[in-house]
Amino acid sequence: MAKKDGEAFEKLEGLGKDMLSEVMKGKSPEFEAAVRSRGNINYDESFGYLRLGNKKETRTFVNVGQARKFMQTVAVAAKCKKFLEENAHTSIRGLFYQLKYSLGEDVEEELFTEQSESNPLIEDLEVALTLKREDLNLNTDRKGVVAGKMVVLDKFGGEETKIDCAKQGRSGWAIPSDVDNGMEFVDVDADYVLVVEKDALWQRLNEDKFWKKEKCILITPKGQASRGCRRLIKKLSQKKLPVYVFTDCDAWGWYIYWAIKTGSMNLAYLADDIATPNARFVGVTMRDIEDYEFLSKLTINAKEIDIKRAQEMLDYPWISRHKEWVGELKTVLKTKKKLEQDALQGPRLSFVGDYLREKIKAKRFLP
Amino acid sequence: MAKKDGEAFEKLEGLGKDMLSEVMKGKSPEFEAAVRSRGNINYDESFGYLRLGNKKETRTFVNVGQARKFMQTVAVAAKCKKFLEENAHTSIRGLFYQLKYSLGEDVEEELFTEQSESNPLIEDLEVALTLKREDLNLNTDRKGVVAGKMVVLDKFGGEETKIDCAKQGRSGWAIPSDVDNGMEFVDVDADYVLVVEKDALWQRLNEDKFWKKEKCILITPKGQASRGCRRLIKKLSQKKLPVYVFTDCDAWGWYIYWAIKTGSMNLAYLADDIATPNARFVGVTMRDIEDYEFLSKLTINAKEIDIKRAQEMLDYPWISRHKEWVGELKTVLKTKKKLEQDALQGPRLSFVGDYLREKIKAKRFLP
Repeated sequence: MAKKDGEAFEKLEGLGKDMLSEVMKGKSPEFEAAVRSRGNINYDESFGYLRLGNKKETRTFVNVGQARKFMQTVAVAAKCKKFLEENAHTSIRGLFYQLKYSLGEDVEEELFTEQSESNPLIEDLEVALTLKREDLNLNTDRKGVVAGKMVVLDKFGGEETKIDCAKQGRSGWAIPSDVDNGMEFVDVDADYVLVVEKDALWQRLNEDKFWKKEKCILITPKGQASRGCRRLIKKLSQKKLPVYVFTDCDAWGWYIYWAIKTGSMNLAYLADDIATPNARFVGVTMRDIEDYEFLSKLTINAKEIDIKRAQEMLDYPWISRHKEWVGELKTVLKTKKKLEQDALQGPRLSFVGDYLREKIKAKRFLP
Repeated sequence: MAKKDGEAFEKLEGLGKDMLSEVMKGKSPEFEAAVRSRGNINYDESFGYLRLGNKKETRTFVNVGQARKFMQTVAVAAKCKKFLEENAHTSIRGLFYQLKYSLGEDVEEELFTEQSESNPLIEDLEVALTLKREDLNLNTDRKGVVAGKMVVLDKFGGEETKIDCAKQGRSGWAIPSDVDNGMEFVDVDADYVLVVEKDALWQRLNEDKFWKKEKCILITPKGQASRGCRRLIKKLSQKKLPVYVFTDCDAWGWYIYWAIKTGSMNLAYLADDIATPNARFVGVTMRDIEDYEFLSKLTINAKEIDIKRAQEMLDYPWISRHKEWVGELKTVLKTKKKLEQDALQGPRLSFVGDYLREKIKAKRFLP
């Protein structure tokens, strides 16, 4: 857990002290944060992921158009500081209700009417202080489970719990919102990380003890990966484990891979923490139909929205720089077909494991 | 896990043998299942939940209009029997791909084109054989987590894993699809079960060790409860534990409670297994505003769709027989307001626990 003597607390306190000292000097306090709009998001080739550029935005208190937003930002920072002091977590919705409740207590004016007002200010704080909302004791939506030879030391609520991800039966260990503060991943005994889009396939592989036989950490994000799940994948990648991603063969599945690898537009401001540029794609691909003939009769029709999404992905330069991906996306546009990872269970339930073993052994990845 | 010498296997084998013996006698094999349409779903006062009535539907092989569906049903049953023999699980989508793959192998005709064809046949089988698809080794979508003094013995993949729900840190134990086959819940040391609609509130209460201080089993279904979650709640209720449900104060939240208590239309055929008629509602209610005045400034506007849903619920006789619920729903229609459980964090993050403690102690429940 983030602590009141920790980095986040110091940064929040520093923010307040700086503002106070401006006021004491007779100046208007200011707040500076990087711009998070599309125009300031670029694919950075040297990093290998989407990052914010250098454009900054300054908010000043003595400005009729900015005073309200400035006060709101300070109110959000003050609440987060309180949560750290109390050593208690909440969601951004819980934060909103605390801000709304304060009306008539801390301030006279109703500072927040809608949650849509407080949400972007939290992002402002994350960017300005170069930390994550998880460090400010704000929980994010959690999703996804893990199995494999890895022990989690979870220091939570004044206790340390040791969770063995190899002993979670059919359930797996549920990935929390925050995998940094008060969390340690030890005894990681694996050759690689396998990220499986769908929980149904994760359960299939877990039942076949794929992670034990193949010595991998088996993760499902259950669709698009949550912040906590992306952060966990990044942390495991930093332990020098290769990361392989296994999704449906359609634009949505492939974008799950790309969001893990290069980050996404919405979370570009967090990319240093959550992008895993050396992730590789293990399947499913349109080319698989050449190697596994039975798949040709298990394709299903792509919908209009699938086609549109494939077209959009062709326009992302960080994807279209890879001829393999251009080939895949163009095949979707041409054939108007897609292929689900579930289809690999067609010949027999255990085939999905054989497919993965074969492709991983032969290193038949897409970049 | 369901076994090949278990009840489900015997029932599937019995179904096949009966059909075969009809054929040997020169008769057309038949398949009988209860009708699952609205007209055959009633609120049964003596049971206290929605159940299927007595209407049956017979499908016969020698009937041009029914032959294809009959063959499909037999194909689904045969696949499930195979899964039980192999001691392996899959999803209904995995089953569909196996059926689709079989084209040209087991049968010449393409028996299944769309998954929408195989899904209702699985329900037919569940009803006809009076068992759940989970007993046929078909996994369902899983969702929800648990914390509390309870040990889970999970016999899975040839191993028995012991999971202590009091030692799951910030994560909790993830509720699986099947909480019956190969699952035992032992050492349950609790005074009641608390079901919390939102994961964010579950995390809040888990951090405050609410389940430890109050001796309860703390469950979040994360919205509408999955089949596995409803089944688990029912099983705990059968261990003589009272079940209290804590949701948002709006039609959607309240319907989460009703689905747990009386079952739902779609799953009425499973109600004997998953409805918990003696569940009680602990909040949030419109009446709470009288007892907790600060809530009046934390209401938010109900949308058109919220109002429409509240109106619909007033028309359900099993709800409108309770004057307390009629009062709550009419207040929503009149004030066009709603109240989120998150709002209870307004005064301080730990208030949500105090609210629950107070209402549970005073037994301020709705029926």
